[in-house]
Formats: sequence, C-alpha cells, structure tokens
Amino acid sequence: MAWVAVLMGSESDWPTMQACTEVLSGLDIGFEVRVTSAHRTPEQTAAYVADAVERDCAAFVCAAGMAAHLAGAVAAHTVRPVIGVPIASGPLAGADALLSTVQMPGGIPVATVAVGKAGARNAGYLAAQILAVADANLATALGADREAGRARVDAQNASVQRDLGR
Amino acid sequence: MAWVAVLMGSESDWPTMQACTEVLSGLDIGFEVRVTSAHRTPEQTAAYVADAVERDCAAFVCAAGMAAHLAGAVAAHTVRPVIGVPIASGPLAGADALLSTVQMPGGIPVATVAVGKAGARNAGYLAAQILAVADANLATALGADREAGRARVDAQNASVQRDLGR
Amino acid sequence: MAWVAVLMGSESDWPTMQACTEVLSGLDIGFEVRVTSAHRTPEQTAAYVADAVERDCAAFVCAAGMAAHLAGAVAAHTVRPVIGVPIASGPLAGADALLSTVQMPGGIPVATVAVGKAGARNAGYLAAQILAVADANLATALGADREAGRARVDAQNASVQRDLGR
Amino acid sequence: MAWVAVLMGSESDWPTMQACTEVLSGLDIGFEVRVTSAHRTPEQTAAYVADAVERDCAAFVCAAGMAAHLAGAVAAHTVRPVIGVPIASGPLAGADALLSTVQMPGGIPVATVAVGKAGARNAGYLAAQILAVADANLATALGADREAGRARVDAQNASVQRDLGR
Amino acid sequence: MAWVAVLMGSESDWPTMQACTEVLSGLDIGFEVRVTSAHRTPEQTAAYVADAVERDCAAFVCAAGMAAHLAGAVAAHTVRPVIGVPIASGPLAGADALLSTVQMPGGIPVATVAVGKAGARNAGYLAAQILAVADANLATALGADREAGRARVDAQNASVQRDLGR
Amino acid sequence: MAWVAVLMGSESDWPTMQACTEVLSGLDIGFEVRVTSAHRTPEQTAAYVADAVERDCAAFVCAAGMAAHLAGAVAAHTVRPVIGVPIASGPLAGADALLSTVQMPGGIPVATVAVGKAGARNAGYLAAQILAVADANLATALGADREAGRARVDAQNASVQRDLGR
Amino acid sequence: MAWVAVLMGSESDWPTMQACTEVLSGLDIGFEVRVTSAHRTPEQTAAYVADAVERDCAAFVCAAGMAAHLAGAVAAHTVRPVIGVPIASGPLAGADALLSTVQMPGGIPVATVAVGKAGARNAGYLAAQILAVADANLATALGADREAGRARVDAQNASVQRDLGR
Amino acid sequence: MAWVAVLMGSESDWPTMQACTEVLSGLDIGFEVRVTSAHRTPEQTAAYVADAVERDCAAFVCAAGMAAHLAGAVAAHTVRPVIGVPIASGPLAGADALLSTVQMPGGIPVATVAVGKAGARNAGYLAAQILAVADANLATALGADREAGRARVDAQNASVQRDLGR
Repeated sequence: MAWVAVLMGSESDWPTMQACTEVLSGLDIGFEVRVTSAHRTPEQTAAYVADAVERDCAAFVCAAGMAAHLAGAVAAHTVRPVIGVPIASGPLAGADALLSTVQMPGGIPVATVAVGKAGARNAGYLAAQILAVADANLATALGADREAGRARVDAQNASVQRDLGR
Repeated sequence: MAWVAVLMGSESDWPTMQACTEVLSGLDIGFEVRVTSAHRTPEQTAAYVADAVERDCAAFVCAAGMAAHLAGAVAAHTVRPVIGVPIASGPLAGADALLSTVQMPGGIPVATVAVGKAGARNAGYLAAQILAVADANLATALGADREAGRARVDAQNASVQRDLGR
Repeated sequence: MAWVAVLMGSESDWPTMQACTEVLSGLDIGFEVRVTSAHRTPEQTAAYVADAVERDCAAFVCAAGMAAHLAGAVAAHTVRPVIGVPIASGPLAGADALLSTVQMPGGIPVATVAVGKAGARNAGYLAAQILAVADANLATALGADREAGRARVDAQNASVQRDLGR
Repeated sequence: MAWVAVLMGSESDWPTMQACTEVLSGLDIGFEVRVTSAHRTPEQTAAYVADAVERDCAAFVCAAGMAAHLAGAVAAHTVRPVIGVPIASGPLAGADALLSTVQMPGGIPVATVAVGKAGARNAGYLAAQILAVADANLATALGADREAGRARVDAQNASVQRDLGR
Repeated sequence: MAWVAVLMGSESDWPTMQACTEVLSGLDIGFEVRVTSAHRTPEQTAAYVADAVERDCAAFVCAAGMAAHLAGAVAAHTVRPVIGVPIASGPLAGADALLSTVQMPGGIPVATVAVGKAGARNAGYLAAQILAVADANLATALGADREAGRARVDAQNASVQRDLGR
Repeated sequence: MAWVAVLMGSESDWPTMQACTEVLSGLDIGFEVRVTSAHRTPEQTAAYVADAVERDCAAFVCAAGMAAHLAGAVAAHTVRPVIGVPIASGPLAGADALLSTVQMPGGIPVATVAVGKAGARNAGYLAAQILAVADANLATALGADREAGRARVDAQNASVQRDLGR
Repeated sequence: MAWVAVLMGSESDWPTMQACTEVLSGLDIGFEVRVTSAHRTPEQTAAYVADAVERDCAAFVCAAGMAAHLAGAVAAHTVRPVIGVPIASGPLAGADALLSTVQMPGGIPVATVAVGKAGARNAGYLAAQILAVADANLATALGADREAGRARVDAQNASVQRDLGR
Repeated sequence: MAWVAVLMGSESDWPTMQACTEVLSGLDIGFEVRVTSAHRTPEQTAAYVADAVERDCAAFVCAAGMAAHLAGAVAAHTVRPVIGVPIASGPLAGADALLSTVQMPGGIPVATVAVGKAGARNAGYLAAQILAVADANLATALGADREAGRARVDAQNASVQRDLGR
C-alpha cells in the first residue's frame, strides 16, 4: 500500500514535524520517519530514497532549516513528489529555509508549504491529497476532514460571540 | 483519463505559464487552461473547480502575481492537489506573490514552486509526478525526461570546455 | 443605521482585533464580529458578506495572518470598502500577511493598515472616518477624539519632564 | 457635491497617478489634483487640506515614493479618509514607500493600497467605494464596473483559448 | 550656548532615547526633551521647532517607530541638522522605521543612525560632533571619549583572555 | 575656511556623487574629492583623513556600495561628522550598502542618507547644514535654497494643472 | 601541483564565472571547469568531487543561482574548502542564492562570497589565498596583485581629479 | 606551526564564538583570541594583523554584528584567508551583519559563513579545512570528525524511532 516518507535534517525538527505525522495518522496513511541529512549523510539519504521508492513510497516530505537542501537533494534522486517544509531555525527565522526550498531550478520541483508548524501540518494534507488522486476512499476522508475544519471555525465564532456577550 | 487544470489570474501570466503547458504536452498529459480570477470572478472560479473535479481533474496549477490568492481560493474549494506558481509582476518582483501563495494556514495546502518561469515549468513536472503516483507509464516517462535533463547538463559542460579550448 | 462588520480568519486574531472593536464602541458605531475563513469556510464568508450588505453594512474590517486572503476574498464579493488588518503570526512576523493584504490587483482594492495591534486600532478609526463622510456627528466625534489624542501626547511629555526632574 | 483630492509629492508621480484619476473620471467623480510635498511645502500641504475639507472634500488620495510621508502628513490634519499610494521610485523599488505609508501609529490611519500603478487605480476605486457608502447611484455604478471587470476576464480567457487553438 | 533638542513620537521611546541624553550629559551638552508627534500633534511639533531654532537650538534628534515621520517632519521645518533614530517597535522590528527615516527625498536630509539603542547613543555622539565643528573644547572632549572607548575594548579583551586562562 | 571632503570607494560612484558636489558648489562651500577605498587603500584613507582634519576639514561625505565600509572606516579615524551615502550597485540594489553604512555600533556614528542619487544630494545639504550651525550666512543661503525648492513644487503643480487643462 | 575545481550548475553561470577563472589564470593557478548540477546530475557531481580530491584538487569553487545547492552538495562530499558564489538569476535577484549558499548547518561550511561578478572574482582570490597558505611564492604574487589594486584606485582618483579640472 | 587568529568586535560576541574555538581545540589547532574593533581600535586591529602574519598566522576568523566591518578591515590588511562570522545582534537580527560581511568588493574576499552559532562553528571547520590543504594529518582528522557527524545523525534518527515506538 502507498505510504509516505517523512525525512528531516535534524532531530530538532521533530517537534515541528509531529504536526505532519499526526495528520497522516489521523487519515490512516502509513509513514516512515527518518532523520537524515543532505549534508552530513548524503549517501544514506540517497540510499534511503532509492530503497523507499523500491518499496512503493508514494511521496516524500522533507523538513530542514537554514540552507535547507534536504528536499532538493531528495528530489534530485526520485521522480516521486517531494514536499518541502521550511523550518524556522536560527536568526533568519525561516526566510532562509523558505527560499532554499522553494526556488528550485526547472526540472526538479519541490512542492513547498509554509514555514514551520502550519507547513508541517499542510505537508501531511498535501501528501494525503496526492495519494487520494488514485484512492477514492482517502479523497472521501479528506472531504470529511475539511468539513470538520469548517465546524471548528463555527465553534471559534461561537466562542467569540460568547466573549462579546451576544 | 486524469488531466490537469491550469488556471491563471490574468492573460498577462500566459507567456510565463506556457512553460508549464509545454511540460504537460511533452509528457502527453491532458490539460485545460483558464483565465479566471480569485478577485474579479470568484464565483466562476469556484464553479469551474467544482465542474473540473466532477470531470476527474486530478490536480490544479494556479498562477497569479502580487497578492496572489488564486491558488488558495482554488484550494479552498477542493481536496485535489493545488500547485501555486508565484508570478513576478509589479515593483516587488514576485516576493509578494511567493508569500501570498506559500504561507497557507494549516488544513488548506498549496504546493508552491519557484517564482516565475522556472516555477511554471516545475508546476508542470510536479503535476506529472502527482499523476505518476498511480500511473507507472508516466513515471517511466518522467524518469526518461530526467535522464534527458542529465544529458543537457553534459552538453552544456561540453560547450564550456570548447569555450575554454580544452 | 450604518454599521461595520469585523471579520477574522481565526479566533486567535481576536485579542488583536479587540483594539478595533474598542474604537468602534468608543465612537458608538454598531458592529458585528465573525470568525470566518477565506480558506476553510469560503461559502459562508461569501454568504455573510452578501447578507451583511443587504442589511446595510457600510464597511468590512478583515483580519488574517500568513497568506492573508480574507480581506481580498471579501472585497471580491462587495463594492463596500474593505479594510485589511495584517496579523503577525508565525515565523515571518506579519511581512507575509502585509504583502498578501495590500498588493491587490487593479479593480479590487483593500484599504490596508499597519501589521498587528496598531493596525487593528486604525482599522476602527478608518471605518469610522468612512462612515463619517456622510455623518457630520460622527465627524465631530472623530475630531474630539483626535483632540484627546493630542492631550495624551501632552501628558506623555509631562511624564518625561518629571522623569528628567524638569 | 462630494469630491476627491488627489495629491502627490512630485510631478514624477503623475504618470502613475493618472491611473487613479481615470477611474474617478470614469465614475463621474469630481477631483482636484495637486503637487504638494510633506517635506518641501508642509505649510501649503496643511493649508490645502484645511481648505479642501472646508470645501467638502470627502477623501484624500496621496501618492509618494521613498520615505513616503505625504499620506501620513495629510492624515495628521484631517479626519477625512486618507488613501496612500506607495510609489516605486529609486533603488529600493517601493518597499520603502510601502512601509512608510502603511505602518501608521494607532489613531491616524492611512488606507494603503498596492505599490505603483495597480495601487493608483485601486486608490480611485477605494475613494469611489467610500463615497458610495452614502451614494446609492455611485454604488450601482461601481457594481456595473465590477461586472465589466468580469467580462474583461472572460475576454482574456477567450483570447488564451484562441491562442491554444481551442 | 548651542544646545540639542531631543524629540520622540511617544513616551515608549524614552527608555531607548536615554542612551542619547546620557551621551549628551556626559559631554556637558545642553538639551531639551519633548514628546511630540508628527501625526498626533503636527502643529505643536512645527511650533516647537520654530521656537527652538529661535532659541539657538543647534541640532535636532528625532526618534520614532513604524512609519517614522517625526525626523522628516522636523526637517521640513528647519535647515538645522536633523538626526533620525529609527525605533524598533511592532512586528516589523524597526525595518519600517529605518526606511521611513533614511529614504528622504533630495533637499530635505535626515542624518540617520542605527535602529534602536545603538542608534540612540550614536545620535548623541553625532549631535556632539556637529556642535564640535565650531567648538574646539568639545572636539577635544570627543577625542578623549573616543580614547576611553579604546580602553574599554582593551578591558573586554583582557576579560576574554582571563576566561581563556591565558 | 571650513570645507568638506567627499570620498568614494570607486570611480564608478562619481556620476552619483556629482549630485553632492553640485549642491556644495551651489552653496559656495569648498570641497575636495578623493577616490580612496576602505579595503584597497586603507592606509591612504586613514592618512587622508588625518591630513584633512589637520587642514580644518569640517565634515566627510563617504560613498560606497555593497559591503559599504568607507564611511565607517573614516569615522573610525576622526571625530568630525561623517556622512554616509549608500550606493546602489550590484544585484542587491543598495540594501546591502544601506545596512553596512547605517548600522554602526555605539560610539562611532555615521550620518546616513538615502540610497543613491537622492542621498548624494542630501549628503551635500547635510554637510552644508552642519557647517551652517556656526555660519549664519550659510544658514541664510540654505533658507533661500529651501524657498527655491518650494517654488519648484509650485512649478510642478502648475505643469500638472496645464496637463489637466485646468 | 595544487589546483582548483570551478563548478557551476548551469552554462548560463559561465559568463559570470569567467571573472573567477581570469583571476586564477592571472596568478598561474591551475583549474578545471565543470558544468555539473546538484539536482540534475547529483551522482556525477559526487563522482567528480571524489575524483578531483584524489587528483589533489585543493579547493572547490561552486556557483549556482536560486535555491543554490551546488556548493553545499559538494561540501557534503569533501573536507576540502568549498567556496560558494551566489548567482543572481530570476526575479529574486540573488537573495535566494545567497541564503541558500551561506546558511549552512554546523559541520559543513561553505565559504560564501558576494552575489554575482564581484563574488566570482573574489572566489578566485579566496582560492588563491587558501593555496598560498602553503605556497610562499603565491603569497608574494597575491601581495603584488594587491599592490596593483592600490595603483588602480590611484588611477581612478587621478581620473576624477581631471574630471574636476584640478 | 600554523595557527588561527579569532577576532571579535565586542566581548558580547564571545559566547557565540566559543563554538568556533571548541572546534579548533577539538582538532588540536592552535589559536589566539582577541577583542579588537574595526571602528574603536582600527590601528590596533591593523597592528595585530601585521604581527600575526609575521608570526605565521595562517587564517583569520572575524566575528562582528550590525554594520560588521571587522572581517573586511582585516582582509584589507592581509592576503591570508579571512573568514567572517555575522553575529545576530540588535533588532535586525543579523541580516545587517550578513550583508556587511559577505558583499565585499572584487579583490578583497571574506569567506562568509552562516549568521550566529552555526556560522561560528563552521568558521572553525573552514579554518581547519584551509590548514588541512597542506596538512594531511589534519585532513585525516577532519575526515574522522565528519564520520562522527554521520554517527550523530544516526543517533538522532534512533532517538526519533524510539519516540515513535518503532
């Protein structure tokens, strides 16, 4: 069955990336998590990508901060979709990671999402949407989840009305 | 058969976005192109998205400049993958479109690619990669195209060596 | 009587936006507050705007963070004035919300104010100024409030003089 | 009858600001144009604002580049709505004018629109929307103009379809 | 005797600006401090500038945050040197104040120093240097102070050597 | 008699800096121009500064692009006022030069003006204002020049009125 | 003998990088030039690096634009010094390439130089300085070249003096 | 024996720069640390550089914040490799120091590393790599250290797997 590889350049990215694996878990999508670095363990990264593709990994989610090359390095080794999550670390607060992830040259795309936790969560949703292209049940589940999101907005609105005494 | 909708907020985005449709054409992927605006024609945009999903559109590519809301507006109306291409127009040169496209809140992802022509081309490749998750022939075609990209780098290298007289 | 709709994309914007409703309350301007999202509840947002206009809503104040589309989405559905408040949330600290709000394409303006609390307060004043164009009493009240602002500067100056022992 | 004052800090802003006066003309809204500078002619600027308010000017549109203070300086002298158009001039391409215009402190709002020509056009529309709050005919005209904008998108779409041979 | 006017747009700038008045005090330079706002009290600001010039004020130091117009507004009313201190306040952390202060149009200079406390201190030194052009004793005092700065670097170096056990 | 040293890091800055020397010439202020580099000729730069101070140079204007260190390097060798003009050269368009010039540490101020030609012109005016602190005739000349600036705004306004056929 | 590898991600970087090889040629330093891509030809890049190190390559110069990963990818495969030249290409003008090159995580440095042609030239000088640590003749040649740079500044100064008629 | 000079503009940079000296210590590379300022102690800085070169200093590491000129000032006085570490201090969070360090003009390179602690650590590694060009033992030690870095990534990965209960 199709599954998602969630890679990150450092263990320090893990608290952020749990927002991604929670989305995948909530949608019953299988996943593996690996700490692997484009710069410190380039061969292992390439080997893992090749092996994962062999084992029918459908998509990769890659998180990294600063000169965030992990998503690009993975994309260089597969034609599976690669989703990049820029992590906000260090003084430049993720602007560096965003540009390093999204500005890929023609031919090697990285599907980039927002910097930090919102992006981590959206990486989970985007991976699910990609799998759902060929999985009608998952598409239905995503539709239901979207509906639940609407209900949460309603609940927030009700909370504000109470606050206003209306 | 699965196909891709290529939307843009203005006809002025079309010269850039032809880099996207050329990739799709080259990989024999069906597509429709529409000029439709998140701000000027919001109902038509929503209606087109609903109709396209009905007709088995697998993914949307959305290009817009400045406060680029088209990709987000489309993503709000479907759980199909939405790819955003930030267009460089106006004095801020695409930095505005990039942030408006990529910084989506949790739950509604937009798969963002690079600003301008490189991004347009990569939007085509990313759409193809998404379709190829469930289409082994397309995956093979993408692999062959990647190989051709390697050959182009070799050709460029040979050209520089000639220039050096080596 | 003319009134103002204050919309925000998330309940988390509410503490900031109370600076807006306090200004409206202080000037005896009627208002409604709604949590409604351009991305999670687009139909509800459009429906609310249509209904509010029907009920003589004179202006909309819309607050959102990150790829802040709420003001633009509201502006797409009405020719009433729409005021956008960029909220500072996430690692990019409001620069994303500012550009997503202000850089609207020709034909669909959003009257953008400063990022965060100062902007929330000014959104209240701007809405009041818009209503005051046809409401001489409100214009007088705004003039008195401006005068009070001058007195506050005087008081601050006196406080600094005391601090200097002068 | 209500009218709009269009001010600019330098004659070099005029080619950009004609996009504003064309919108006003097209909607039959009266306007005056003045070159007046927050820095070079501060007293004249203040005197003009006072006189214009006396003569029932309903709103001010102020365009300036670089450390763009004109809109803020006008806003300091009136409680009429002030719309700021950041002009892209000099090496920083309007990022300076945008921040100088939009980041006003609490109490003195400037309704800021996009940098450059798109903003100039939207300043015209925003001024019209403000006047239309108390002018049902103008509101109707704005609705018709919006409808015409939709038709222009349709025409652009048709042009792209022809280009595609579809 | 020549003296310096230290103006700030808000009492909240005072803790930062004490770094300026401490430098002036340390060099026995007379000064006045005023909270006065380009936007909230424009007439008072202009009146104070005229009066201060009348009373032989030699230079103005003006501190403000966000769309920091105070220095420019003062410069518009005098040909005395005006020093601008951009204050870091609000989400954009002083980048807005820096551009609003430094990017003045030709003819109306503002001598801009660094954002925040370092700039406040340097505004004091710059004012002193300006007075010292015609005051040899003050020039000598500034030279001595500079020498003391060198000694502080030496002391810092000694402290690091101790830390290294060398 | 008091005079001004105008230094620049490269001959390529000269076309920009003529806007400075024209202001000085117009006000009958003596000046010397030198191409001297903080990085390529640091000893010569320091020697020139020492010699110029010896010969009663009242203020230094220093122009440089990119990592613009010339103003800071001059300021390190004198307590005379140093004015920095950030030059827009290279791909970063002067943002690099602006930050390299203005963000000086406490104790060593550089009076920074706008990037490029407007800044060059203002450097001339600021130098003149500094000299005028102790030169009443020059202060009068500056006042007259300011008045002429007002007349130029009036002329620009008249030109726009003609363009409008009013 | 020690030599330098000059790598670039695309033939379009070659006009810029000739500023690097001209410096190396002028100092009689051997070099090889290769077009090789971190994303399109990752295995070839790694293989070239391993082979070059084997053949006593002393340092690598790597040029790339946008999400410039080439220098980082090379640095991941060697402990030889790697110099990164950010290329200004595409709408973001090199700010993307700068951050992608310089913000490397701890343990894998890239010695980054300025964006574009100045950086290309300095990459040549930096490579030479690195080789000169163990090559006294080269150090002497660099000293002579530096002296020649001083003479060029003198010549530029003389040219400006002639222009001034002094 | 070859050694490295570690310079910083202020004692406040020392906590960051210990990440550099720890790397040097761990690789048994000799070093000296000095607090010396491009602006407060320019002559001492130049004198130290000359003396260090005389005593066979192989490379300089220079850390500074804001308008970070120390690395450039050192580079102006030697043809030894100079490594610049931009320090994040003050409201602009190191963006100012990065541009002031990296954007050096042609002929005077500064090998710039990341802003803050990661850069400090990499400055140590880069200095070691430079020395290792002519020191095979050090090259071997760097290779072993790189291997240890790989093991740390493995350990981080194992920790995340435990966290996942896998």
